[in-house]
Amino acid sequence: MKRKLRMGMVGGGKDAFIGSVHRIAAYMDGLVELVCGSFSIDPQISKDSAEALFVAPDRVYKDYKEMIEKESQLPEDVRMDFLTIVTPNFIHFAPAKMALEHGFNVVIEKPMTFSTEEAIELQEIVERTGLTLALTHTYSGYPMVKQAKAMVANDELGKVRKIIVEYPQGWLSRLSEREGNAGAAWRTDPKKSGKSGAMGDIGTHAAHLAEYVSGLKISELCADLSIVVEGRHLDDDGNVLLRFNNGANGVLIASQIAAGEENALTLRVYGEKGGIEWKQHDPNNLYVKLLDRPLQVYRTGNAYEAPYTLSSFATHNTRIPAGHPEGLLEAFGNIYRNFVLTVSAKLDGETPTPEMLDFPQVGEGVRGMAFVDRVVESNQSSDKWVKVD
Amino acid sequence: MKRKLRMGMVGGGKDAFIGSVHRIAAYMDGLVELVCGSFSIDPQISKDSAEALFVAPDRVYKDYKEMIEKESQLPEDVRMDFLTIVTPNFIHFAPAKMALEHGFNVVIEKPMTFSTEEAIELQEIVERTGLTLALTHTYSGYPMVKQAKAMVANDELGKVRKIIVEYPQGWLSRLSEREGNAGAAWRTDPKKSGKSGAMGDIGTHAAHLAEYVSGLKISELCADLSIVVEGRHLDDDGNVLLRFNNGANGVLIASQIAAGEENALTLRVYGEKGGIEWKQHDPNNLYVKLLDRPLQVYRTGNAYEAPYTLSSFATHNTRIPAGHPEGLLEAFGNIYRNFVLTVSAKLDGETPTPEMLDFPQVGEGVRGMAFVDRVVESNQSSDKWVKVD
Amino acid sequence: MKRKLRMGMVGGGKDAFIGSVHRIAAYMDGLVELVCGSFSIDPQISKDSAEALFVAPDRVYKDYKEMIEKESQLPEDVRMDFLTIVTPNFIHFAPAKMALEHGFNVVIEKPMTFSTEEAIELQEIVERTGLTLALTHTYSGYPMVKQAKAMVANDELGKVRKIIVEYPQGWLSRLSEREGNAGAAWRTDPKKSGKSGAMGDIGTHAAHLAEYVSGLKISELCADLSIVVEGRHLDDDGNVLLRFNNGANGVLIASQIAAGEENALTLRVYGEKGGIEWKQHDPNNLYVKLLDRPLQVYRTGNAYEAPYTLSSFATHNTRIPAGHPEGLLEAFGNIYRNFVLTVSAKLDGETPTPEMLDFPQVGEGVRGMAFVDRVVESNQSSDKWVKVD
Amino acid sequence: MKRKLRMGMVGGGKDAFIGSVHRIAAYMDGLVELVCGSFSIDPQISKDSAEALFVAPDRVYKDYKEMIEKESQLPEDVRMDFLTIVTPNFIHFAPAKMALEHGFNVVIEKPMTFSTEEAIELQEIVERTGLTLALTHTYSGYPMVKQAKAMVANDELGKVRKIIVEYPQGWLSRLSEREGNAGAAWRTDPKKSGKSGAMGDIGTHAAHLAEYVSGLKISELCADLSIVVEGRHLDDDGNVLLRFNNGANGVLIASQIAAGEENALTLRVYGEKGGIEWKQHDPNNLYVKLLDRPLQVYRTGNAYEAPYTLSSFATHNTRIPAGHPEGLLEAFGNIYRNFVLTVSAKLDGETPTPEMLDFPQVGEGVRGMAFVDRVVESNQSSDKWVKVD
Repeated sequence: MKRKLRMGMVGGGKDAFIGSVHRIAAYMDGLVELVCGSFSIDPQISKDSAEALFVAPDRVYKDYKEMIEKESQLPEDVRMDFLTIVTPNFIHFAPAKMALEHGFNVVIEKPMTFSTEEAIELQEIVERTGLTLALTHTYSGYPMVKQAKAMVANDELGKVRKIIVEYPQGWLSRLSEREGNAGAAWRTDPKKSGKSGAMGDIGTHAAHLAEYVSGLKISELCADLSIVVEGRHLDDDGNVLLRFNNGANGVLIASQIAAGEENALTLRVYGEKGGIEWKQHDPNNLYVKLLDRPLQVYRTGNAYEAPYTLSSFATHNTRIPAGHPEGLLEAFGNIYRNFVLTVSAKLDGETPTPEMLDFPQVGEGVRGMAFVDRVVESNQSSDKWVKVD
Repeated sequence: MKRKLRMGMVGGGKDAFIGSVHRIAAYMDGLVELVCGSFSIDPQISKDSAEALFVAPDRVYKDYKEMIEKESQLPEDVRMDFLTIVTPNFIHFAPAKMALEHGFNVVIEKPMTFSTEEAIELQEIVERTGLTLALTHTYSGYPMVKQAKAMVANDELGKVRKIIVEYPQGWLSRLSEREGNAGAAWRTDPKKSGKSGAMGDIGTHAAHLAEYVSGLKISELCADLSIVVEGRHLDDDGNVLLRFNNGANGVLIASQIAAGEENALTLRVYGEKGGIEWKQHDPNNLYVKLLDRPLQVYRTGNAYEAPYTLSSFATHNTRIPAGHPEGLLEAFGNIYRNFVLTVSAKLDGETPTPEMLDFPQVGEGVRGMAFVDRVVESNQSSDKWVKVD
Repeated sequence: MKRKLRMGMVGGGKDAFIGSVHRIAAYMDGLVELVCGSFSIDPQISKDSAEALFVAPDRVYKDYKEMIEKESQLPEDVRMDFLTIVTPNFIHFAPAKMALEHGFNVVIEKPMTFSTEEAIELQEIVERTGLTLALTHTYSGYPMVKQAKAMVANDELGKVRKIIVEYPQGWLSRLSEREGNAGAAWRTDPKKSGKSGAMGDIGTHAAHLAEYVSGLKISELCADLSIVVEGRHLDDDGNVLLRFNNGANGVLIASQIAAGEENALTLRVYGEKGGIEWKQHDPNNLYVKLLDRPLQVYRTGNAYEAPYTLSSFATHNTRIPAGHPEGLLEAFGNIYRNFVLTVSAKLDGETPTPEMLDFPQVGEGVRGMAFVDRVVESNQSSDKWVKVD
Repeated sequence: MKRKLRMGMVGGGKDAFIGSVHRIAAYMDGLVELVCGSFSIDPQISKDSAEALFVAPDRVYKDYKEMIEKESQLPEDVRMDFLTIVTPNFIHFAPAKMALEHGFNVVIEKPMTFSTEEAIELQEIVERTGLTLALTHTYSGYPMVKQAKAMVANDELGKVRKIIVEYPQGWLSRLSEREGNAGAAWRTDPKKSGKSGAMGDIGTHAAHLAEYVSGLKISELCADLSIVVEGRHLDDDGNVLLRFNNGANGVLIASQIAAGEENALTLRVYGEKGGIEWKQHDPNNLYVKLLDRPLQVYRTGNAYEAPYTLSSFATHNTRIPAGHPEGLLEAFGNIYRNFVLTVSAKLDGETPTPEMLDFPQVGEGVRGMAFVDRVVESNQSSDKWVKVD
């Protein structure tokens, strides 16, 4: 890289949790500077945010349209390199499309769009423009998730037979959307969130994680969604039976009414020769259970000797030596870092390495939208199985 | 109790794991003596077992029929008080029926019978004779499982909304039934095990645990069973969506091909006000997650102050003070101890306490058989839901 | 074994925790029957205990003297085979000595005697009579402790460099001996407990565990004992620097005022090539940390392939397959079982196997007393190091 | 804050682990920009590092002297605001002193200096100049460490009675300093590291953590240091008995030859009413063990209701909601953030809040040097106790 990349931001005003996460992730490696933004639909919040973020007043815009238009007219060595979109789901597609069409790369929150149609259109634009889009499926950024993926790919478990992925949260155990919780409000509003609540918000993370690590695709599913908290308008809980394209079976559980749980995403993959387990609350451990062997715990940052050596994908995404816990912000930072390294390589006329390219992209966004569609369809059906394309 | 109870045994020769477990459970509290048995269909093994178990040669019988007949002719203060049945599933019903009809109480392994019809008939006999039958759903014998049940019953979680129960094992990851593993052989043989493999063997434990702790009944289910290991004749894996009779949803997973897992039965129950989690590998901890509170870990044997005081059902089933781990044999021993205390109370003309009566009985055996029937029916159906009576 | 062994008991009335633990341990394998006892200095408690324990009234004795005298006059095939002594420390020596001199084997609680002189005398009697004495250092009975010992002996860690053994309890955080806690009362009374409180009661367990697993001997120590709770008469807490006879260093911590701890005995042994860790609260896991390798967790009851195969000493002391937790009562039971197998082998004119002989014996009792002496001496000295013989 | 602060750096070239940690910590909140540096004594490494770090070539200096001189001549709105010193221990004092005397604030690695004399002189300069010095005792930056401190301060444990702090690492189990490990080389070289190895490098962290959380001071100690690996010149292991200024006792263990351990810093504090435990490998959990209560696990980022509400010091140092693990880089970042907020407040003529001021400062650096002096003195003495001033 010859210079820092310049980031613009839609959404993420100082009152929004996720904007701050994106900024920390973008900042931590010193590869990105925030140069412009439209941080809120409330102009005062946007202005205040810009000040707190040390963004020049003349690069705070009233909305994403103005931002993209004006930035694209700035000199090439001044204007933003990429746009980060951290608005609610229903305002993902339009700024992403417009940014790409004006030549800007994009980082976008999941689920990628409001509908599958939008997702497919976005994919076409990305392919047409040759630009780069990163989708922040955060959990795929953890080093031990990458190690798990590498071990499956290296056939250390044999053929995969069963996958259990769970994402229990408890934060919507009450009707928090009526108690002034802004994040709860839009996530439970079908007009802003889309056709699913919990499945769209966190089920998509779980599905992505299962497919990412296993290298398999969900081919059929049978879903049971619930609106558990009375008065809510979208599913806050769901259980899904899965079948994968190699014949493996699985279960996906996503809940926001699992009272007392924080963010307990967990993945287990079982193959012919052994199983692996990873827990987001304890992200630097990967539990490897091979038949006829003691349980092994692989840990981030270690320089194990062969044949235990950590994958290059794990080590590329690790910043500090073993025993120094890395957390969610670093996992998030890995997505940004790989996105930035990829964009920079392209700008510099170089070919990104496989490790750089290892971040969720537009195809995974399309797949996530299809997953939501099929889950909702299955939930409404009295047939057992629904095929996933 | 005025005297030890006298136990007879069908099956459980010295080559069988489960017979030994029953004996340790029966012996540990000094309330039971083994007086007779038919330990194996192989007369030499039966004779050798008797010798190793210090059973008098004249009370070793060639089969359960001879045993029940001859024992019933012995003087009242000599003959066995109860018969323990630890044969494969297809030889549960006949000895149980005959024992009850000759006035002997019964301890029986799960699943209780080969078919639901047999189970219902057994229930009728138990009700008619007024005798006592204990079904060894081992895991309900753990003190912290009883604490969990008490906390749900005391409304500490509020209305139950979601239950996740899992029972992953990996010991059938290979075709072990062809490699001389006797336990694997009969369990995977439809003629000996019944219409289901994993679901009958361990799925029934999981279903029992979920119902026992929650006090709810499974009312509908949607099952996906698999024969994962090629060449096997019964399911070795299954995933089931559940609906309970109060509207709660749930998931039950039972697998014997979860490579690398030992016996990782886990239960999570989520209510309006919080959730609980219990893991069989770590049985002396009960994780209690109340909304807006730090996670609490209740542990066996503690004399907590109110309102944390452990339930009388937990303390009644605890032998030693906090910090001294109790394990599966003690949980198993609790079922025996409560069975023996109940039988003795009845013999002595006393009324057993609720704590004594807290062991799995014939009704739970009927319910387990119905669960297996419905799971198998659902698996074969293209409809989503099957009702459970 | 041709018959069950017959046990007599001094102490262990129905109001005493530890008597019950001994009986469960003795009973669980069906190798022992309780035939006589003097369960309490209170004749009514002794009589009631005998009744509850199904001991014949004519074999309940007013004290250990009467018991030993009368039992030794009974026919050989009736009288007790061994005497279990579960009285407070100051009544260990006399009954043990008298029992041995009348030809009875002995099981005795730790610390073995009140003074080192008594311990040495007992050792001489054991050696002279050829009888067997088992000292219940419970924690050495756990299978994973035996696995740890085997791994050190097999040089899997290389030369041992450092040992950390801790035994924190919190149950004496208050002046419980004044609040009617009988166990607390005698343990904190110098006339009944001996010259040390916490160090005698639990520090001896810790020291034994460190030496048992490492195969090393403590050669020097530097102790800092405290009476933390005002009004107490014996140490309730102590920290000790250790040096072992191979040059390794170490730390031993024993506390009964570590508020909130239950019985958290933990051992870590570090060698040139790796370390191991074992925790009594989690006794079926042995954490093995080899240089340049992922952490391995060895677990009780597994049939690992070579070179991971569990030691014969671990498997000999395991009753049930992997995934079925064994606890403190089984560890205790292992001491009894090995003692009984050893005594029976001798009675039958056979040679006990090394696995049978693997239980704490009189020499370890002498060593425990010397440890207490040296710790107390060091605590009173302003010199840094005190040598241990 | 009205603007980002400008950071200069001595040491921390691209080949050095710790420089990178400081930069990530400084960058993550978007409050700091790196403007100048002398990154290595090797000019080419320094130049290359500057390029990779996007530092302008005209602000890369040949050494700290040149940097401080030239920077101090730059306009006020251009020159660095503070200097980060990440060189080996023997080059801490001189640049720190010179920076302060030229008006620059300082961030410095621990141990603060090479000798206690230097430390005291630095303290005098800081006091005289009124400038701010941050000492990176990383572990005090974790939110749950701050929660622990708050709970002790709020008397939730009662009077503190016992403290156990351990810092086992295994990375110096071999003579790595002879195998090309640069970090090992200087740390084991008395000329570069100081009079102690393990105790200076990590024992100081442990001592700081114990004093920081408990609010107590170590008043006496008895140390046993070892050079375990043959051929090494400084202690690689040490065990220390402690006495605190309120009468509490304690143990401190620091080892770099605890083979198989990563960075397993652990603190336990026991008071009259309960104990707390914190483990650096698992930093978002704080285990709270109150007498007569179930174990409680406080976790980072939760909005618990009273009386469980997390301290303002914990929440001020948390970036993301519960269930999103924060790690070492965030803890490190908290030290930077508080330092920067304090410096900015002073620059803006405001008074820093207590939360802002909660980072290790020069007094703690002096105390750390005294600790090392006393430990080394005690190790060489045959007297049991050495007083700490």
